Amino acid sequence: MKLYFSPLACSLSARIALYEAGADASFIEVDAKTKRTEAGADYRAIHPLGLVPALEIEIEGGEVVTENAAILQLIADRFPQAELAPRDPLGRARLQQWLSFIGTELHKALYMPLLDKAAPAEVKAYALAKADARLGWVAERLAAREFLLDRFSVADAYLFTILNWSSVTPIDLKRWPALAAYHARLLERPAIARAFAEERERYLRELGRHAKAAPASAAP
Amino acid sequence: MKLYFSPLACSLSARIALYEAGADASFIEVDAKTKRTEAGADYRAIHPLGLVPALEIEIEGGEVVTENAAILQLIADRFPQAELAPRDPLGRARLQQWLSFIGTELHKALYMPLLDKAAPAEVKAYALAKADARLGWVAERLAAREFLLDRFSVADAYLFTILNWSSVTPIDLKRWPALAAYHARLLERPAIARAFAEERERYLRELGRHAKAAPASAAP
Repeated sequence: MKLYFSPLACSLSARIALYEAGADASFIEVDAKTKRTEAGADYRAIHPLGLVPALEIEIEGGEVVTENAAILQLIADRFPQAELAPRDPLGRARLQQWLSFIGTELHKALYMPLLDKAAPAEVKAYALAKADARLGWVAERLAAREFLLDRFSVADAYLFTILNWSSVTPIDLKRWPALAAYHARLLERPAIARAFAEERERYLRELGRHAKAAPASAAP
Repeated sequence: MKLYFSPLACSLSARIALYEAGADASFIEVDAKTKRTEAGADYRAIHPLGLVPALEIEIEGGEVVTENAAILQLIADRFPQAELAPRDPLGRARLQQWLSFIGTELHKALYMPLLDKAAPAEVKAYALAKADARLGWVAERLAAREFLLDRFSVADAYLFTILNWSSVTPIDLKRWPALAAYHARLLERPAIARAFAEERERYLRELGRHAKAAPASAAP
């Protein structure tokens, strides 16, 4: 398996899943701005919209799967011994419910506009207005439990990755103690600590590259 | 099964899936504005965020599943004879890829802000700027094929429902002939024609109720 990722992007959750599963995988870094891989290849040849993650798998001569919710379930299903996803119908529905909620309500509707340096203030304010209801609801769910489902799952890997972004947005996780505690707790899992530390280092290097490439006057 | 829906909202795709499957289901209308059911009950008791669809199923004494991607797969899996979802691992990954792409990139990032009467002009413009790349990519996919996957699936039910919304946004489907043709083609399927006609009638009634409830001066 080959994972295309950008440092600390939502692709981090797929790396976490691969580490949790003990999977034999390679990782290709895609610059979030230039959409070039470390080797200089154009990532748009893999995903025309330039979105990460993409997972290349050795099925039927090599296939590329995109979209985080699909990739996370694919990893969970390829490494069933890691128990990263429920397999009973109701459990799987609950997993998909969380993957969808995190992907649509949190990732796309709330965090993405806040992370986009090019988004106008009105767009950020519109997104931020959704924070209380949505994060409050998740916090309520996590108040009395360790994970989103009965045990650690790929949905936790995804939610951890999204909550990570709070530090560079106006969202203060401390306002929801259950969320802050959940995030801190997950960071203690060896697979997550390792994935996060590795990508954080790469993220800082990416920031350095971008700062060097952009003249100060053109910096966003 | 009991489906909570609002007329022509994304819950339409779940109704389509139920009709395609010949499922025995009941349907509870939720007013998109007041979040009350036809009987006057508060829908927030079912889903605290007031989001449709929700599907009540007779598993383990009655469970409510939310989020369209989860509900659509649950319906497909409960009625396998309808073949609304691939069951092989790669096929299922492709289905999840489409459900996720439609849910995040089209539904949440593009159409939702355009449909929200309370969204400022900057928010609508920001969303609309994503239309060309995203719809262009889907149109390219559909140029030479009848469905998103090899045969009709719940992903088509979802995409049909989203494309439907174009008529009340600045998105002109005719700019992508492959999308316009796909939408027209799907509308000829008996299950879709029936579901659409029924919900369209309810949608017009809902509009009438809202117009009556809001004094003209306060109309958005």
